[in-house]
Amino acid sequence: MTARPDQTEAGARAPYATPDDLRQALVDAGVLHLTAVDGVHHRSWDWERVLRGVEAHVMAKRVATNAPRRWFPPVMPREEFLRTDYVRSFPDLVGSIDVFTGGDREHRALLEVLDEGGDWTAHLTPAEVMLPSSVCHPLYGTLPHDVPAEGLDEECSGWSFRHEPSLDPARMQVFRMYEFVRIGTPEQALAHRDEWLERGLSALAELGLPVRAEAANDPFFGRVGTMLAVNQLDAQLKYEMCVDLTEVRPTAIASSNYHEDHFGQTFGLHLADGAPAHSACVGFGLDRVTLALFAVHGMQPDDWPGEVRSALSL
Amino acid sequence: MTARPDQTEAGARAPYATPDDLRQALVDAGVLHLTAVDGVHHRSWDWERVLRGVEAHVMAKRVATNAPRRWFPPVMPREEFLRTDYVRSFPDLVGSIDVFTGGDREHRALLEVLDEGGDWTAHLTPAEVMLPSSVCHPLYGTLPHDVPAEGLDEECSGWSFRHEPSLDPARMQVFRMYEFVRIGTPEQALAHRDEWLERGLSALAELGLPVRAEAANDPFFGRVGTMLAVNQLDAQLKYEMCVDLTEVRPTAIASSNYHEDHFGQTFGLHLADGAPAHSACVGFGLDRVTLALFAVHGMQPDDWPGEVRSALSL
Repeated sequence: MTARPDQTEAGARAPYATPDDLRQALVDAGVLHLTAVDGVHHRSWDWERVLRGVEAHVMAKRVATNAPRRWFPPVMPREEFLRTDYVRSFPDLVGSIDVFTGGDREHRALLEVLDEGGDWTAHLTPAEVMLPSSVCHPLYGTLPHDVPAEGLDEECSGWSFRHEPSLDPARMQVFRMYEFVRIGTPEQALAHRDEWLERGLSALAELGLPVRAEAANDPFFGRVGTMLAVNQLDAQLKYEMCVDLTEVRPTAIASSNYHEDHFGQTFGLHLADGAPAHSACVGFGLDRVTLALFAVHGMQPDDWPGEVRSALSL
Repeated sequence: MTARPDQTEAGARAPYATPDDLRQALVDAGVLHLTAVDGVHHRSWDWERVLRGVEAHVMAKRVATNAPRRWFPPVMPREEFLRTDYVRSFPDLVGSIDVFTGGDREHRALLEVLDEGGDWTAHLTPAEVMLPSSVCHPLYGTLPHDVPAEGLDEECSGWSFRHEPSLDPARMQVFRMYEFVRIGTPEQALAHRDEWLERGLSALAELGLPVRAEAANDPFFGRVGTMLAVNQLDAQLKYEMCVDLTEVRPTAIASSNYHEDHFGQTFGLHLADGAPAHSACVGFGLDRVTLALFAVHGMQPDDWPGEVRSALSL
């Protein structure tokens, strides 16, 4: 499952010694701009046009050509967010949004606290929206409860927020993913995960990325979370597609996940026999794949190998 | 300054009688999907590809061809947000982000409240990021304090959050804008606003949109805000480019704004003589222009007039 990159004069650079070195190269070339907050970046047009090319390349690999496609905004309904296990399993990554709903009098009270340097946000109330922690979460609540015999194929793209401030350019607080989701029987879901793992590795290898599959787990929180992570790894529910961008650690640029009946139970999606539906999703990290392309092929997209530029429509 | 649309058999539809009628037409055609929250929509691929065409069309109108361009993520540093007057002038639109920073013990306490249906968000703390209320806000804090004699031209694109839940599809809680910003002398800033007003109207007319300029004001909050809005209107600081998508009210799809020395003062940007720099920005509402195109030309982009499709690279 491992492909080697085209290590030619075309400018292959990865692996960098450290994430710091990679970050510095991106900043020096004007590809990414840092902000006052770790993990929050301004993107250049080069970054954006490569990212759009990545999305188009990935979209072109769809097999279920009639699958609905949706682009989600960077906020989602709070009610649907709370139906997932995110606050329970990944509380440290969650972003909750507060808003002001008072009148003139309440506003004056808020400003007094703000002017004194106090916690003015205590005058806010939880909004009806939150930041999505995973791109496919806003999907499940919109699906029909009766899953057809052939299963449901869905695609979605959008922003994800995970509060994990870091100087590693691979660990952004907000990033985009494109996901292919299937809901159906356990067999249909497992086949989706496995077929897309192969298809995903090929699609990424076509971009000249030296990618390999690794069994993985989600970053469950706390003591209970450690056990959940071990179980997930043991059951081989999650595979990541990894590239060595630095010598410090591999970087996952896509993943293929089997959810068992987790979302079927949570969102009341069931099969013809009444059993909860199973699901699987493959997510391509659009910002991560873009990062990998700059790390592997160099900071000037105009100098990338012709076949890579062509695959990205650059 | 008014252009009339090509009201041919190609499917010009606007104005709809009401925003409800327009929303229903978009939903029936699968162009937009509603969610459980008013003003939060899932977009179709048709919407997205049109929106990218709008962005490219607008970007192609740039005059300052060496201006840096940045794509901002949907969150920005809290510290920079608080340097603007947003909490003072538009508190009702602001989105503040809270996160969880505790350990196992604090997590158990949070989950107890969540399970009892209480306000679990009281266990969160303000994050170092907020949602941007305006796309160009994250720009000013990144600029050099000494503005060169020829002025600074900058472009930026990104998401904006304004908490104003509405059933009007023109009033989304999160939406994208592309902005052209100039920082310099009062004359340089005013020229930017005026030249871009003309250039913006032409660019939008090329898309077959019957657009016109109107003096406008921002939605300042409360009693004090009413006066601020009147002053802004009197001083003719803001012009909107409007289209009649419904018979109820005009829809602003772009605006051209003179900030006087507001951001220069706030972010310490000054001219050679030490005076605070002035600034102006023109913002194209990418989701609003996209909405206008569907409303005016019909729900099937493949049936739009050839010159519009060509301008959008569809």
